[in-house]
Amino acid sequence: MQSVSAYQTSFIAYLESQITPKEPQHLYNPIIYILSLGGKRIRPVLTLMSTEIFDANYKKALPAALAVEVFHNFSLVHDDIMDAAPLRRGHQTVHEKWDTNTGILSGDAMLILAYQYFEKYEPKTFRKLAKLFSKTALEVCEGQQWDVDFETRMDVTIPEYLKMIEFKTAVLVAAAMKMGAIIAKTSKSNAKLIYDFGLNLGIAFQLQDDFLDAFGDPATFGKQVGGDIIENKKTFLFLKAMEFSTPTQQSRLLHLFSEHLENSEAKIEEVKQIFDETGASQATQKAIKEYTHQAFETLEKMKIDAEKKAVLRAFGENLMGRKV
Amino acid sequence: MQSVSAYQTSFIAYLESQITPKEPQHLYNPIIYILSLGGKRIRPVLTLMSTEIFDANYKKALPAALAVEVFHNFSLVHDDIMDAAPLRRGHQTVHEKWDTNTGILSGDAMLILAYQYFEKYEPKTFRKLAKLFSKTALEVCEGQQWDVDFETRMDVTIPEYLKMIEFKTAVLVAAAMKMGAIIAKTSKSNAKLIYDFGLNLGIAFQLQDDFLDAFGDPATFGKQVGGDIIENKKTFLFLKAMEFSTPTQQSRLLHLFSEHLENSEAKIEEVKQIFDETGASQATQKAIKEYTHQAFETLEKMKIDAEKKAVLRAFGENLMGRKV
Repeated sequence: MQSVSAYQTSFIAYLESQITPKEPQHLYNPIIYILSLGGKRIRPVLTLMSTEIFDANYKKALPAALAVEVFHNFSLVHDDIMDAAPLRRGHQTVHEKWDTNTGILSGDAMLILAYQYFEKYEPKTFRKLAKLFSKTALEVCEGQQWDVDFETRMDVTIPEYLKMIEFKTAVLVAAAMKMGAIIAKTSKSNAKLIYDFGLNLGIAFQLQDDFLDAFGDPATFGKQVGGDIIENKKTFLFLKAMEFSTPTQQSRLLHLFSEHLENSEAKIEEVKQIFDETGASQATQKAIKEYTHQAFETLEKMKIDAEKKAVLRAFGENLMGRKV
Repeated sequence: MQSVSAYQTSFIAYLESQITPKEPQHLYNPIIYILSLGGKRIRPVLTLMSTEIFDANYKKALPAALAVEVFHNFSLVHDDIMDAAPLRRGHQTVHEKWDTNTGILSGDAMLILAYQYFEKYEPKTFRKLAKLFSKTALEVCEGQQWDVDFETRMDVTIPEYLKMIEFKTAVLVAAAMKMGAIIAKTSKSNAKLIYDFGLNLGIAFQLQDDFLDAFGDPATFGKQVGGDIIENKKTFLFLKAMEFSTPTQQSRLLHLFSEHLENSEAKIEEVKQIFDETGASQATQKAIKEYTHQAFETLEKMKIDAEKKAVLRAFGENLMGRKV
């Protein structure tokens, strides 16, 4: 098995060999730009890792890993248009650097390119990968739509919220890992288990992201702490606080989440206090632990060497061990 | 062989059985809407027809025909956003009826859905269809980008323009027909020839569309006659007129094509006169004939029954026989 950083290096070299300038430049330059902005490349690394977990050479998985990363970046480009986001990874978003039309069209091309990378595989594997990919990509669109719908709904339930983050975030992590299983031609049972491992870890990761958005350390959390509160986002923390709150706390929380302030510091502090007092913070941490535990349970059922299980467990622990 | 209207009826019944309401409604309703607006369904009909031309049951081609139609409508939804078009087939465009974000996301879902329809085929056919589809879809994006680029370029050449309409329009017609060849498992030679038939007919059709946009009969031409002139579009007619014009005609044409008028009637008449006087109208009609002839030549080389050739020829003649 390689180290995570070895997978990253190998993946980036492959990406740079495949994503090269092409005509019309106005279509392909934004693709090169967004893919060069970096990021942790977690999803493609998981595809490579999963392939080796099931005893195949990770290099066979490079095209699939690239498909996953290109798709992920496609979704960022289109989501950033929808959110009117000016920045991505500290740089201008594609629609800011060029324009909205460029963001739409270059995004479309990325979605198609992602499918083309699967053409490196023979028909049966190609079909399995493309089928999993289409199912996943459509779920990501549905998750994004639920997320948009939830902005204007006051009756979002916890199960609905969990389904939304499962579709918007976790299914791609799960599919990235299952692609490794498909390429390595492991058993159906193992392929299903690694999917479930990725799915539960993905949900845990997103719930932790929700938690850190409010309670994270500004020095180590990548985004603006309190961003979700400023934007009145109905995260798991908010929904749990609504569930557990007294009528007084509830009306206060609803009032705070109807405000759009210039300076949100006082609001952030008060909301965090309500999250703590209602037990929402604790409930969120409990849910994170449960989904992480669920992922590790799935691992136990897999028919692979103990050392391979240890690698996946270490990856999961490392991912979830981000400091609060 | 079925009649064109029988293919249309069969296709629409299949479309309505496959495109049904689903959650989240906000994602799927716009897809049902745009696919219900009608249109001549030329591309899917060509897939069904081509399948029977090569001696297979056209019903086997229904999923591929649906993929082609859903992709075509995806491109309309995203193009209409880029062009800020309020109307499509006499009805509100998706981004007008809902909003731009809905147009982007529902469009994305349509592109993915198109790939999913190929899953009805076994691995080898699936791979061939999806590969042809990806290549074609990417070319359509490139064609759209060239079209956007040409708006701000004054040095567009005739070969560049022809490449643009080939990619933006003709390759999808060609691919729609080749899919029939793939599904019917005919020879590689036949598959290539039907692709070339569709490609040449597609270019001829688009050149005729350019011609009719200026010289068509308002009573039978589906769009606003003179629309391209009003928008200063550098069509084949314009580029040929620039090539053949005297310095005086050229500077007059350039002046007219820099104007954005409230009332364009006089401008349209003067531009049409220059198109006639320079010989651009004649040159365009000659090019239309040549591409149509080229398509029919390709037909002769195909190894199929004479009656099947007659069917394709009749379809081509009918398509190109739209009254001026």
